[in-house]
Amino acid sequence: MLIVMTPLATAPEVDAVIARLVEKGYDVHRSTGAERTVLGAVGHVQESDRRFFEDMPGVFEVVRISEPYKLAGRTFQPRNSIVSVRGVPVGGDEVVVMAGPCTIETPGQVRESARAVAKAGARILRGGAFKPRTSPYSYQGMGVEGWKILREAADEFDLATVSEVMDASQIDDALPYVDLLQVGARNMQNFTFLKELGKTRKPVLLKRGLSATIEEWLLSAEYVMAGGNRDVILCERGIRTFERYTRNTLDISAIPVVKKLSHLPIVADPSHGTGHREQVAPMALAAAAAGADGLLIEVHPDPDRALCDGPQSLLPEQFEKLMDQLRIVVPAVGKRL
Amino acid sequence: MLIVMTPLATAPEVDAVIARLVEKGYDVHRSTGAERTVLGAVGHVQESDRRFFEDMPGVFEVVRISEPYKLAGRTFQPRNSIVSVRGVPVGGDEVVVMAGPCTIETPGQVRESARAVAKAGARILRGGAFKPRTSPYSYQGMGVEGWKILREAADEFDLATVSEVMDASQIDDALPYVDLLQVGARNMQNFTFLKELGKTRKPVLLKRGLSATIEEWLLSAEYVMAGGNRDVILCERGIRTFERYTRNTLDISAIPVVKKLSHLPIVADPSHGTGHREQVAPMALAAAAAGADGLLIEVHPDPDRALCDGPQSLLPEQFEKLMDQLRIVVPAVGKRL
Amino acid sequence: MLIVMTPLATAPEVDAVIARLVEKGYDVHRSTGAERTVLGAVGHVQESDRRFFEDMPGVFEVVRISEPYKLAGRTFQPRNSIVSVRGVPVGGDEVVVMAGPCTIETPGQVRESARAVAKAGARILRGGAFKPRTSPYSYQGMGVEGWKILREAADEFDLATVSEVMDASQIDDALPYVDLLQVGARNMQNFTFLKELGKTRKPVLLKRGLSATIEEWLLSAEYVMAGGNRDVILCERGIRTFERYTRNTLDISAIPVVKKLSHLPIVADPSHGTGHREQVAPMALAAAAAGADGLLIEVHPDPDRALCDGPQSLLPEQFEKLMDQLRIVVPAVGKRL
Amino acid sequence: MLIVMTPLATAPEVDAVIARLVEKGYDVHRSTGAERTVLGAVGHVQESDRRFFEDMPGVFEVVRISEPYKLAGRTFQPRNSIVSVRGVPVGGDEVVVMAGPCTIETPGQVRESARAVAKAGARILRGGAFKPRTSPYSYQGMGVEGWKILREAADEFDLATVSEVMDASQIDDALPYVDLLQVGARNMQNFTFLKELGKTRKPVLLKRGLSATIEEWLLSAEYVMAGGNRDVILCERGIRTFERYTRNTLDISAIPVVKKLSHLPIVADPSHGTGHREQVAPMALAAAAAGADGLLIEVHPDPDRALCDGPQSLLPEQFEKLMDQLRIVVPAVGKRL
Repeated sequence: MLIVMTPLATAPEVDAVIARLVEKGYDVHRSTGAERTVLGAVGHVQESDRRFFEDMPGVFEVVRISEPYKLAGRTFQPRNSIVSVRGVPVGGDEVVVMAGPCTIETPGQVRESARAVAKAGARILRGGAFKPRTSPYSYQGMGVEGWKILREAADEFDLATVSEVMDASQIDDALPYVDLLQVGARNMQNFTFLKELGKTRKPVLLKRGLSATIEEWLLSAEYVMAGGNRDVILCERGIRTFERYTRNTLDISAIPVVKKLSHLPIVADPSHGTGHREQVAPMALAAAAAGADGLLIEVHPDPDRALCDGPQSLLPEQFEKLMDQLRIVVPAVGKRL
Repeated sequence: MLIVMTPLATAPEVDAVIARLVEKGYDVHRSTGAERTVLGAVGHVQESDRRFFEDMPGVFEVVRISEPYKLAGRTFQPRNSIVSVRGVPVGGDEVVVMAGPCTIETPGQVRESARAVAKAGARILRGGAFKPRTSPYSYQGMGVEGWKILREAADEFDLATVSEVMDASQIDDALPYVDLLQVGARNMQNFTFLKELGKTRKPVLLKRGLSATIEEWLLSAEYVMAGGNRDVILCERGIRTFERYTRNTLDISAIPVVKKLSHLPIVADPSHGTGHREQVAPMALAAAAAGADGLLIEVHPDPDRALCDGPQSLLPEQFEKLMDQLRIVVPAVGKRL
Repeated sequence: MLIVMTPLATAPEVDAVIARLVEKGYDVHRSTGAERTVLGAVGHVQESDRRFFEDMPGVFEVVRISEPYKLAGRTFQPRNSIVSVRGVPVGGDEVVVMAGPCTIETPGQVRESARAVAKAGARILRGGAFKPRTSPYSYQGMGVEGWKILREAADEFDLATVSEVMDASQIDDALPYVDLLQVGARNMQNFTFLKELGKTRKPVLLKRGLSATIEEWLLSAEYVMAGGNRDVILCERGIRTFERYTRNTLDISAIPVVKKLSHLPIVADPSHGTGHREQVAPMALAAAAAGADGLLIEVHPDPDRALCDGPQSLLPEQFEKLMDQLRIVVPAVGKRL
Repeated sequence: MLIVMTPLATAPEVDAVIARLVEKGYDVHRSTGAERTVLGAVGHVQESDRRFFEDMPGVFEVVRISEPYKLAGRTFQPRNSIVSVRGVPVGGDEVVVMAGPCTIETPGQVRESARAVAKAGARILRGGAFKPRTSPYSYQGMGVEGWKILREAADEFDLATVSEVMDASQIDDALPYVDLLQVGARNMQNFTFLKELGKTRKPVLLKRGLSATIEEWLLSAEYVMAGGNRDVILCERGIRTFERYTRNTLDISAIPVVKKLSHLPIVADPSHGTGHREQVAPMALAAAAAGADGLLIEVHPDPDRALCDGPQSLLPEQFEKLMDQLRIVVPAVGKRL
């Protein structure tokens, strides 16, 4: 925290600020210039302290020094983390594709999806058994039965599994079936849940909140890591903007920014990010070209009849074509599929 | 859902859309004009259906008809709901003020706050025992012990209590101490939690999410109400905007809008909405002038030494002055304090 | 500008940053703590310099010190500015109401509006002759003829006038008719235009851009003031948010914030801020309760037949009622109407 | 415009709405279902009419049918437009790279930049002579002299030129030197300027406003086109979001969305979109992978000493490397460089 005094601040005003900094336990650095005095305060800063000093007489501005995250930051771990999802390494040279239906409906539908995505080169099978829905009247998912179906199909085609867990109370049920525990965007700051995930030893896929900053997102990763679970994969899935033609705005620039700030792997979800099938391939290619470690893509054998999010699901043949395009693109950034 | 065809859409394209609407169980209304055909589809619309039809050939645009909320809407309950919080009626002619410290620290601090706010005319005592914090390294609250302190102080000065509950697992512990269960902004779409609150018979204070639309907020209220608990009070506490001088932007216009769309009471929290003591009084007065049913205000006997959010807490004498100003303002909109 | 080095920054990295600061003409303050070094750089900071240093090795973060505005800021002029609009003082104890139709249509319509608003206590007559429209196919206003009509009606009822000027080329035409030159939200950063307004000696009403921060808004005021014209009145008219039930979100909190940062008067426009007649009165009262120096309100004798923005215009009798309510509210904040 | 009545609307309420629609000149389609009545109104809809009907008794919601743009839309011109910039075709199979310094400083600097970018494969030379700056105290550019320098360097290396024009008054001065007239983001809704550009016969590069929707952007293009100038190239340059690590958020998804809605070429500016050199290449590759028709990239022979935006400028050797990467990526989407 740096406290910038106004050019007109008096000596007693400056002294009062210093006295309160010391009282609150900060190390103080003073720097007096031709125009004004600046005070540096080192120590763990409470957000409310920042506003406290902003309101003291003679203070012009209090500027925050960021990155209160430590375990998630690149400062103390410069090399990339590689997270193993049932043996599939995420965060290395390989772009890992996770694909499958939005919602688990029937064993046949999941099996058919698994076969198609495995054949095209996906490594992890996705599928939702519990669905967070804005309206209480929308379909809420088939529950644990769905996870059993997912596991079975994944095992047959030698895929790992990823699926959303909505609450701490569901974690135990998920463990036998889900290899990568997905935290949804609306739960990114459900701190009770994040703490519980910190106690498991399963990797976590942490989706970015709809209006979360990258700093808040990394701090949520820090919650899981501080609990002892270092295996966090970040997933950009679109932020809320004023645009109405897209469901959300997939923030591709989050990929290079996260790569600079953090050692954690980052993947992109162009299906939820756009909401329209025809935009999925362009955005998947864009994410890969920007350096994403992986992609989460909805594929459905019969999207027109999907219970949920059919319009953003690719047909198996469209997915195959996309994988071929990705094989052209990723070598440009030193990766392989 | 209304499906607008392009001016160039062919008859077979129109027929194909109608066929799919029928297949998906919608009642279809067709309206063919000089320029184009519009199809109305009545029934419960899945969000994904909307995008499904958007992607069909010949479709220009699919427009959604809003208000999937029923219990929370004014359509079927035109008169205002009055929610009783341990006998204090919220939603009627009286502007109900809920005040107290951000965080429960000691019995003395809470007792002193309770005395001050009761004397000035507040009816409900606020105080946080569990604190949702962006960083895992920030202070997380004193827990159930805090609620006991809150209850004791409230009882002494004949006040009801309001406090945040962070998770379904905390509800039972809260029931003996907390009269109004507060759902924090970051939990507004924690649907598992909302469903559990629907099973209790305690009133719920539902804060608006940082980037939630009013429709999403009312749908979250609907989750609680659909579970059987009709006693929901909405709380506007600031939305995220590009402005950096304020912590959040308190959306005062949400008050008249909610009043039009819903029969539920709405209160405002100018303390979290602004983050600065000097803006609390102007924004409290503004909310009251716009027709709020109540206010949630942080008051602390010694804000400079508060563990949390001291800079946005009023001193008891500032609070008293604000109450006097409110007594001038609220008759202008037909209310009393 | 403050340059925060990483905890791991080496001595040569720190020296390199200092060398470049000196080379670029900054005064440098160095502060080395237990954990890290912080460098303060005093002088006029180019935005691009900030990013330049962010990218140097060993730099953790570059924090900006704000308020590059000087003439608009309260630092060097602590007392409130009072801007005279043809003798009507804006920025003092009186809340000045500017009212009239959105668009000038006919002499009768303007005259009737002027009579009604003057009778109810308004001091300045508003009315648009040039309309900025998102679509080229929408009505664009009646031009200079409209200003003549506005002037005539205002003179008859002893009112001053305010009207939007869209371009530097229109300023000369406006001078005989318009007492307060309004700059629309979409022109807030039309810098060529702002410079030209700096050369006139007429007061300027500067609307806030739809997604402008308060700092950018004050910097735009600074453009006008730096040109020699100190008579700037700020007008909050709503910012763009995710909310769809309102046309814009009137940011009431901008009023106390601007009052803290600047000595310039600030008024609010609840008509454009909300877009709906029924929300105009609540938001006008809210703005007044928050300390606004004035209000800009659309009033139309027959809003249902208005050429533009009828739905947000008050009827004369609604306006009269609002003025009565305002007379109750403003004494609470030490003002009069 | 579609007017949805509430389920409880009475027959006289429906009739009143129909009567007013007819009075206002709309063709009316009525569709009465089991649950409610929906009225379709065909004709040119004024935005204010929409709100007018919203406020009539019995009306539940008024839904807008979009695309009031005609000339810019794909409906009536299905095939892609190709805009010729001094013979360079933008909008076809070739990805056109426009590169050069942010600001024109000296003949040597521009010449060196031109040589470097031409050698690496750029077709158009960029460089700013007039700079829109948030603060009046920042450097404002060298003016027309700059354009002469730009022209000379471009001619030597057989490049076309692109440069920002800030105002209608500068158009004539620009014509001899600038082949592609750039409209800055802050001027996207400077309608007076757009109309003047519609009268020229030079191609226009229209940057997207910081918080503009794609629809508003296309309507601004429509302003130019309605004036008679069909040669508009759209340029995505980043939108304002809550993220602080990037200067703006480059909205890559705008590329496939614009491609669907409009026949106009779209290019991306990853330099202004990110503000950081290290993010320019990932975002340039992403834009190309998403199907952009071109890129606008800042290149400076000595970015550390650039007058403006040095931190986001690539060095010539970085630009060359990026061009090589682009040559790998663009065939994946059926384009060439």
